[in-house]
Amino acid sequence: MFRQPQRRRAMTRLVIPLEKTRLSGVKKCSKMACRLLDKSSAEELIHTTDNFLFDCDGVLWDGKGVIPGSPETIAKLKALGKRVFYVTNNSSKTRKEYVLQCQKFGFDATEEEFASTSYVSALYLKNLDFKDKVYVVGNPAMATELDACGIKYTGIGPDPLHGNLDDWLKMELDPQVKCVLVGFDSHLSYMKIMKAATYLQNPDCLFLATNEDTHLPVNNCPIRIPGTGTMVKAVAWPAQREPVVMGKPEPSMFEVLRKTHGLDPARTVMVGDRLNTDIGLAKVCGLKSLLVLTGVAKMSDLPKNNVEKSCGVGDCSELPDLYTSSLGNLGAFI
Amino acid sequence: MFRQPQRRRAMTRLVIPLEKTRLSGVKKCSKMACRLLDKSSAEELIHTTDNFLFDCDGVLWDGKGVIPGSPETIAKLKALGKRVFYVTNNSSKTRKEYVLQCQKFGFDATEEEFASTSYVSALYLKNLDFKDKVYVVGNPAMATELDACGIKYTGIGPDPLHGNLDDWLKMELDPQVKCVLVGFDSHLSYMKIMKAATYLQNPDCLFLATNEDTHLPVNNCPIRIPGTGTMVKAVAWPAQREPVVMGKPEPSMFEVLRKTHGLDPARTVMVGDRLNTDIGLAKVCGLKSLLVLTGVAKMSDLPKNNVEKSCGVGDCSELPDLYTSSLGNLGAFI
Repeated sequence: MFRQPQRRRAMTRLVIPLEKTRLSGVKKCSKMACRLLDKSSAEELIHTTDNFLFDCDGVLWDGKGVIPGSPETIAKLKALGKRVFYVTNNSSKTRKEYVLQCQKFGFDATEEEFASTSYVSALYLKNLDFKDKVYVVGNPAMATELDACGIKYTGIGPDPLHGNLDDWLKMELDPQVKCVLVGFDSHLSYMKIMKAATYLQNPDCLFLATNEDTHLPVNNCPIRIPGTGTMVKAVAWPAQREPVVMGKPEPSMFEVLRKTHGLDPARTVMVGDRLNTDIGLAKVCGLKSLLVLTGVAKMSDLPKNNVEKSCGVGDCSELPDLYTSSLGNLGAFI
Repeated sequence: MFRQPQRRRAMTRLVIPLEKTRLSGVKKCSKMACRLLDKSSAEELIHTTDNFLFDCDGVLWDGKGVIPGSPETIAKLKALGKRVFYVTNNSSKTRKEYVLQCQKFGFDATEEEFASTSYVSALYLKNLDFKDKVYVVGNPAMATELDACGIKYTGIGPDPLHGNLDDWLKMELDPQVKCVLVGFDSHLSYMKIMKAATYLQNPDCLFLATNEDTHLPVNNCPIRIPGTGTMVKAVAWPAQREPVVMGKPEPSMFEVLRKTHGLDPARTVMVGDRLNTDIGLAKVCGLKSLLVLTGVAKMSDLPKNNVEKSCGVGDCSELPDLYTSSLGNLGAFI
């Protein structure tokens, strides 16, 4: 049922072929143990790693504020001469806003150290030399990053329900739109979904998504805060199309950092709180991985004896090399 | 990733086990031809069939009005003493409203002849002796049918975005809610999705959906009108749960008619415009099937030589026994 436009084949300038990287990721983790971080493994990690990539929500901070110990760990790594980067699926902040948030929480960070999905989506279109218009189901941060890359767009902001079926059938759409980009949008509405799904009936219209996260990590709170995957699924189903996804575990964000800063995957670690995105990215790109338990993943999500038994793709592609209760532990060991 | 509450096992009073019916459906259609309706096959159909089940949108009418020839065909069938029923996935009308719409378009119909997903959802909960409250992502017709069955509910109507993450985390929800029911809701909003996904974090909370249609059938119009599946996917993804679906191709709606009116599946035909819902229902319930091409399915969706070659489940479970360009042709042959 799902059709993918031919054009997708020409869209891989930024990304490495998924099948190849995924297979190599699976191969690398075969029969690898998932170990608790201790002084010995922390020292080994420091010794063999130049580049530390951090997810933000659930690792550095969460909905309630900074996660204790995280700023000190980042500072220690930088003092040791390690390069630090921030790789976040969150599309609702610009890189500039992330730097301000870092400063507020006591992290030292620059714009160049950030790869967010709002930034990478805009860069992806710029690298395609995309000259048409984007229909965005998204947020102002995505607009800012598109502006910075000189990409035309429409759709940001509220678009509440109006009219009825007769009115909708007469709706006039923008003939310049040749891409639908879906990111986090708390203004999600039936009108937006209808417009996006209609644009996507044109097989030449690109379909991009910043990420497919299920929900935002919020510790010890019963409220489920829907993530960007909510908006993506709401558009993909009526359109009967599948998007090209920018966010983790897809490799685009690491590729941007690798090309810009010349990172060696073998001397890079991804630190995150989610198995299916952060640890998934590490496996796809051949990075080392450290899981922290201050966000989405819980101890119960790991194999009971901490050693992988069966190496089915579904298991080992999301099993971290190391895990620890919080990022502060890494700082305490070094 | 998807969890289904234990309670589901006790919820099958209305439905027949899916695996069994699906397997029997697959068996029945093995190597069966998909034939163009002609005078001979129309007469054979009339001779061997007592009960005619009709989908509505795309068969009797579409977004632009009545489909020519359909009212005359229904009238001829009734004149021959055939029993006529209407089986629609559309949840946005009550049975009473459907009868009025039928009268407006020249169809003779009674409430008892209608099985709509709004009605069957309410009946499903009533038959479970459900005494708690339902959180409805839906529409006023669903409220009316729930009222008629004495089921308490909340959530109908607009619930626009308000507040920010801090406010959402303090949101107070209704402790009486033990079921989330999703149907067509053009007021779909981030707040509704958040509430539904939060209720569904309780594994004892039931998750029902009226149907999962991708879009509404609208002939010759480029606008894609998102169907109820849009709302269902938007709730299911952040909740990481899969619903029990009332609508076609799931058997609940036929089961209601069968039990109420004593229908013999072997002497019943399902007439519809969609392979994956209407024809799917026929296969699941062991009914004969007639596809009309006035709605979603197009000639290009059928095998080129009109005879099924491979009998993989994905193919034969949606291949009709007969097809015709419009329902009026059946009337013309009888």
